[in-house]
Amino acid sequence: MTEKIGEAARTVVSNTTEIIALSPDDGVASIEGHLDEAVAAMGVLDVIRQDNNESDAYIIACFGDPGLLAARELTDRPVLGVAEAAMHAATFVGSGFSIVTTLARTINIARHLVLLYGMNEHCRRIRASELEVLALEDPKSDAFKIILEECQKAVQEDECNAIVLGCAGMADLTKNLSAELKIPVIDGVVAAVGFAEALVRMGLKTGKMHDLAFPLKKSYSGIYAPFSSK
Amino acid sequence: MTEKIGEAARTVVSNTTEIIALSPDDGVASIEGHLDEAVAAMGVLDVIRQDNNESDAYIIACFGDPGLLAARELTDRPVLGVAEAAMHAATFVGSGFSIVTTLARTINIARHLVLLYGMNEHCRRIRASELEVLALEDPKSDAFKIILEECQKAVQEDECNAIVLGCAGMADLTKNLSAELKIPVIDGVVAAVGFAEALVRMGLKTGKMHDLAFPLKKSYSGIYAPFSSK
Amino acid sequence: MTEKIGEAARTVVSNTTEIIALSPDDGVASIEGHLDEAVAAMGVLDVIRQDNNESDAYIIACFGDPGLLAARELTDRPVLGVAEAAMHAATFVGSGFSIVTTLARTINIARHLVLLYGMNEHCRRIRASELEVLALEDPKSDAFKIILEECQKAVQEDECNAIVLGCAGMADLTKNLSAELKIPVIDGVVAAVGFAEALVRMGLKTGKMHDLAFPLKKSYSGIYAPFSSK
Amino acid sequence: MTEKIGEAARTVVSNTTEIIALSPDDGVASIEGHLDEAVAAMGVLDVIRQDNNESDAYIIACFGDPGLLAARELTDRPVLGVAEAAMHAATFVGSGFSIVTTLARTINIARHLVLLYGMNEHCRRIRASELEVLALEDPKSDAFKIILEECQKAVQEDECNAIVLGCAGMADLTKNLSAELKIPVIDGVVAAVGFAEALVRMGLKTGKMHDLAFPLKKSYSGIYAPFSSK
Amino acid sequence: MTEKIGEAARTVVSNTTEIIALSPDDGVASIEGHLDEAVAAMGVLDVIRQDNNESDAYIIACFGDPGLLAARELTDRPVLGVAEAAMHAATFVGSGFSIVTTLARTINIARHLVLLYGMNEHCRRIRASELEVLALEDPKSDAFKIILEECQKAVQEDECNAIVLGCAGMADLTKNLSAELKIPVIDGVVAAVGFAEALVRMGLKTGKMHDLAFPLKKSYSGIYAPFSSK
Amino acid sequence: MTEKIGEAARTVVSNTTEIIALSPDDGVASIEGHLDEAVAAMGVLDVIRQDNNESDAYIIACFGDPGLLAARELTDRPVLGVAEAAMHAATFVGSGFSIVTTLARTINIARHLVLLYGMNEHCRRIRASELEVLALEDPKSDAFKIILEECQKAVQEDECNAIVLGCAGMADLTKNLSAELKIPVIDGVVAAVGFAEALVRMGLKTGKMHDLAFPLKKSYSGIYAPFSSK
Repeated sequence: MTEKIGEAARTVVSNTTEIIALSPDDGVASIEGHLDEAVAAMGVLDVIRQDNNESDAYIIACFGDPGLLAARELTDRPVLGVAEAAMHAATFVGSGFSIVTTLARTINIARHLVLLYGMNEHCRRIRASELEVLALEDPKSDAFKIILEECQKAVQEDECNAIVLGCAGMADLTKNLSAELKIPVIDGVVAAVGFAEALVRMGLKTGKMHDLAFPLKKSYSGIYAPFSSK
Repeated sequence: MTEKIGEAARTVVSNTTEIIALSPDDGVASIEGHLDEAVAAMGVLDVIRQDNNESDAYIIACFGDPGLLAARELTDRPVLGVAEAAMHAATFVGSGFSIVTTLARTINIARHLVLLYGMNEHCRRIRASELEVLALEDPKSDAFKIILEECQKAVQEDECNAIVLGCAGMADLTKNLSAELKIPVIDGVVAAVGFAEALVRMGLKTGKMHDLAFPLKKSYSGIYAPFSSK
Repeated sequence: MTEKIGEAARTVVSNTTEIIALSPDDGVASIEGHLDEAVAAMGVLDVIRQDNNESDAYIIACFGDPGLLAARELTDRPVLGVAEAAMHAATFVGSGFSIVTTLARTINIARHLVLLYGMNEHCRRIRASELEVLALEDPKSDAFKIILEECQKAVQEDECNAIVLGCAGMADLTKNLSAELKIPVIDGVVAAVGFAEALVRMGLKTGKMHDLAFPLKKSYSGIYAPFSSK
Repeated sequence: MTEKIGEAARTVVSNTTEIIALSPDDGVASIEGHLDEAVAAMGVLDVIRQDNNESDAYIIACFGDPGLLAARELTDRPVLGVAEAAMHAATFVGSGFSIVTTLARTINIARHLVLLYGMNEHCRRIRASELEVLALEDPKSDAFKIILEECQKAVQEDECNAIVLGCAGMADLTKNLSAELKIPVIDGVVAAVGFAEALVRMGLKTGKMHDLAFPLKKSYSGIYAPFSSK
Repeated sequence: MTEKIGEAARTVVSNTTEIIALSPDDGVASIEGHLDEAVAAMGVLDVIRQDNNESDAYIIACFGDPGLLAARELTDRPVLGVAEAAMHAATFVGSGFSIVTTLARTINIARHLVLLYGMNEHCRRIRASELEVLALEDPKSDAFKIILEECQKAVQEDECNAIVLGCAGMADLTKNLSAELKIPVIDGVVAAVGFAEALVRMGLKTGKMHDLAFPLKKSYSGIYAPFSSK
Repeated sequence: MTEKIGEAARTVVSNTTEIIALSPDDGVASIEGHLDEAVAAMGVLDVIRQDNNESDAYIIACFGDPGLLAARELTDRPVLGVAEAAMHAATFVGSGFSIVTTLARTINIARHLVLLYGMNEHCRRIRASELEVLALEDPKSDAFKIILEECQKAVQEDECNAIVLGCAGMADLTKNLSAELKIPVIDGVVAAVGFAEALVRMGLKTGKMHDLAFPLKKSYSGIYAPFSSK
C-alpha cells in the first residue's frame, strides 16, 4: 500500500519534486480505529523526527490525519494530512461533498475531523463501504465495485457534487470512479501532495508560535527517549 | 494593480504555466463595499464568459471573492477566490489566523466569507488598517508601515500564528511582512494560483451537478445579453 | 409574474401604502442559479439607484435575495429580501420550517441564505419540486399539485410546523396550500411587504455605518457608469 | 410602566388596531432574573388564557420573552416576544447589533435567547448598563444618560450598526437615543407590535402541530387549576 | 410515578445519602408540552423554596428540566436536571446518542435543551415513541415493547452507541432495555442523582454570580407572594 | 505530581473505592504540547492494556485528555478525562466558565477540546498563566499567587461564574482558590473521579459499537507489539 500511495503522489508533482513514500518502523498495517490512530501518530512523528528536516514538506497518508498537529509542532516544514487536503480540495471544486470510507467504525473519526476542519456545512454525509483497509489490496475483492456503489448512493441521496475517498489506500481507484460518476472524486494523497508542493513554492512554513512552536526542551523516557532534546 | 497581481502570481507557478492577468472592461478601480462586489462579480463573469474555456483555471483576485459560485457555474475549470485560498492556506500552516484588511467597511464582507467557508473556529479576528485600496498603489503612502503595525497587534492580541492579508493589492508586501513578523503572512493571489495549479495537475474539475451545473439555456436582455445561450 | 407579485403585495398593506412592482430593464426572466442571481443583483441595484429614494422601502422579490446587502448600502430606506422575510416570519408562527423551492439547483443558494440568516436551527429541510420558475406561470402546468405534494411530504417527514415557499412566483398559491395543509404557508412577498410597512411605521432606517454606510464616492466605468458618484 | 409600553405600542399601529396593555394579576413588578422570568411566564399564560382568543395577536412585553412557546401552544393567534421582535428587526436594518440591557444578571438570559433565535452571528455583544428596571421609571435617575453612554461604547467597540434595547421599559428612550447615535435603536415593544400587525394582515396563525399544537386535555391542580381543560 | 423515580434514585446513591422524592402541591400529573413545563417550573421552585436549603442537592425529575436555571438562582446547593445529566452521562460512555422520548410534541422541547447544553454534535436524533407519559404507569400498556422497538431503530439507523431515555417515568425500564440493546441506556434520574452526589462530595456549590446570584430582594404578588423576600 | 493527584482523588470517593495513581513506564514528565499529548496517549493506553480490566474505571489525569477515545475503545470500563469532567462539572454549577491553564502553548489544545465537547457556548475564555507544569511542584514558585491573579481577571472580565483549572497538577490549589474567589473552582481530577464513581454505581459501561467497539484483532509491530491481539 505504501508503494501504491507513493505512485499516486508522483502523478501530481512537477518533475523536480521527489516523493519518498515510507512506513514507520513500528506500528500497524492498517489504521481502523482510535488505537490505530494513536499508534500511527507516534509512527508519523518518529519518521519526521528521523528525517531531520531533510524534506521540504511532509504528508500524513492516512485519512485520520494521525499526529497532524504534533507534526506541525516538530518541524517548520509544511505538513498536510490527506483527510484535511481532500476536504479542502472538495470545497474548491464542489459546493457539498460526501466522504466514502472503509469501516463504519471509522465514521466517527472522520466526523471529528470534519468538525475540527470547519467542514460541517460542506460535508453532506460520511458513508462506510464496510470494506476493511487491507481488502483494498486484494485483487480478488470487489473493492472497486463496492465503493462505486456507495459513491452512487451518495450522488443520488446526499445533494453532493464531489466525493472524498476516506482512505489513502483508495488512491488508485480515483480516476475510474470519477469517470463513472461524472463528478470529482478526490483522493487525499494526491490533494495533499499537490497542495504541499504549492505551499513550498509559496515559501510558506508553519507558524512557530503558540501550540505550533517547536517543542520545549525536555526528556522523554523509555521507548520515547529518542524524542528528548539534544 | 493588475500588473502587480500578475507578477505575484508568476512567482509561484512552474515554468510551464502561463499567467494572464486582466481586469474586466467595465467596472470599478477598487472594491470596497457590497456594491463594488456586485459590479466586480459581473466583471469576473464576463471575463470568464469571453475566455471561452481557453484557460485551465481561473483566479478571482479580489478578497471578497466576487462571483465565485457563479463562475463555478459558468465553467468546469477550477475557479478559486483569493480570500478562500488564503484562508485555506492559513489552516495548513497555522492553528489560528487573523485577517488584516483595508477599510473597516469591508470587515463584514470578510466575516460572511469566514462563515461560508467554515473558518469560524480558525479565524481569530478581522482587523481593518483603514487604508483605502488605492493607497496601496501610492509609493508615498505609509501602507507597509500601517499594515505591519496592524499585523503586530494581531500577533500580540489575537492568539494567531498566521496572518491573512485582506486585499489582493497587498501581494507585494507579503515577503517583507513575513520577515518582520516571524509567522506566515499569506497573500491570497499566490495561494490561489498555487492551489489552482495543483488542482489542474490533479485533473480535478468543478462538479457540474446541482447549483454548479452549467447554467440553464435562457435569454438575458439588455447589457446582459452576451450571457444568453447560443 | 411581476404583476402577480404586485397583486400579492397589495393584499397585505394598509390602504395608504402604494405598491410599485417593476422589473429591471436589463436582466433575465427567471432566476434559477448563481449567474442569474448575479445578474439580478445588478438589476435590483439599478432600480434602487434610479428610484432616487422616492420610495419608503424596497422589496427584492426573488427568493435568493440578490443584491440585498448592496441595496442596503445604496439607500437608507429599509430593504427586505423575500427569502429573509419569509424565514423570519416562519420563526414567528412555527418552531421549525421547511422550504419548498423550484429546481434542485437552487437548493444550495437557499442553504447559504439559511446559514447567513442564522436559520440553521429553524430550517428543517430545503425541498425542490423540480418545477421551473416559468412553469408557475403556465396555467396548464400541474404547479399547484406538484408543490402541494412536496409540502405534504415536508409535513410528514420533516417535523416542521410551517412551510416557506422558495420562489416569489408562488405568491398566488399560498392561501390554497395553507388551507390544504393546516399549517402556515408563507410567501416571502407578502411577508417582506408586511414587515417593510412595519419598519417604516417604526421609523427605522438602515444603519449607515460600517459595511452599510453609503458607498464611497468613486467612478464606475462602461455599462456600470451610472453608479458613479455625482 | 405598563402604560408607557401601551403608549409606545400605539405609535406604530394603524388606526384600526386597538392596543390593550395589561399586567398579570399575580406576579412581580420587574423582571430581572430566572425566577422572575418563570413567574412572569405564568402571568403571560394566565392573561392569554383569560383573553379567550378575543385578541388578534399577543405581545409579551418583557425582554426575556417569558412563556413565549407555551403561549404559542395555548392560542393560535400570533404571539411575539419583544426580544425576538427586536433582534429580528435589527437584522433587517443592520448587519450586526449590540444589546444594551439593564442589570448584568440578565445578560445570560439574553444570551440564551440569542442562541435559540439563531442570532449568534448577528449579535456582537450584550452590554449591561447596571440600571435596575424600576430606575427607568424614576424621573430623577440618570437612566437616559447611562444608557446613552453604554450605547456609545457599543458603537465604538462592537462593530455594530444597530442597537437593541434590552428592556421593554426603555421604550420611551428610543427616539432620543437614535437621534444621538445616528444608527437605528430598536425597542422591542414597537417592533413586536409592528410585526404582529403585519402577521395578522398576512393572515398567518401559529402552526398548530408538534410542540405548538393546542395543549392536551388534562387537569391542573391547586393554583393552576384554571388551566385545566373544560 | 414519584415513588418509582424515588426508588430508581435510591439504587445509585451510597447508603449515607437520603433521597426525598416529592411532587409539588400544585401542578400537573404529566408534563407533555410547553405549558406543562411552565407550570412544572413553578412547582419545582416552590419545592426548593419551601425546603429552605435543608437538602444538599436538588434533582428536577422531568426530562424538560423545568425551572433549572431559576432553581440555581434560588439556592446555592447543586441542582441538576435529568435531561442535562442523562445527556452528559451519554457523552461519557458513548460517542453519539439518540434520545427516545414519549410524544412527538416533546421533541422540540428536547431539541432546545440539546442546543443549550451544547449537545448538537453528540445527539444523533430525537425519537418519539408516541406513548403518553401516564401510559408508562399502566401495566397493561405495551410501554416496554414500544420503547424497545424505537431504541432498536435508533441503534440501526442513527450511528449512536448510547440511548438517552426522554422521560423520568421510564426509569424502571433502563436495565431491561440495556440488556436487550447491548449499549448503555441512560435514565436521567439515576444519572442526575449520581452526579449530584459526586458534586456534593467535591464540595461544589452553584456559582452565585451574574444570572445565578441569589434573586434580588423584591415582592411577588398574589399566588406568587411566598417568593417575596423576607 | 502523581502522588498529589492520587491524594486529591481520594478526597472525593466513598471509602469503599480504591484509587490507584500511576504514571506510564515510558513517557514524559510534563505535558505541554501536541507531541507530549501524543506520547502521553500511548502511555495511557499502555497502562489500561496492562491493567487488564482489573479496575472499574479509568481517569486520564492530564488536561488534554490524551488517548481518551482510544482508551474507550480498548476497555468497556468507563474512562474519563479530567478536562472533560471539569468542563461538564462547570456547566452543572455555573452558566459560563473560564479555563485557567499553564503555558499559552496549551491554549489551542484546550480550545479543540472545548469544541469537541460542545462547550463553545459555556466556555467564556481560555487563559494562560504562563507557569510551566513543573513549576506547580516547586514550593518556591509563586504558582498559587500567579494562578489566583489570572482567576481574578477571569472573574472581572469574562462574565463567568465558574473556573476550570487547566492542569491536573493544580489539584491541590482548588480549595484555596475557591475560598478567595467566591465562585466554584473546579479541578478535573476530583470531578473525573467523582463522576466515574457515579457511572460505576449506575452500572454504565462504554457503548461497544461503532468507533468504541473493541479494537479489531490485528498485529502491531516493534515497540507497539504488546497491543497485538492474543
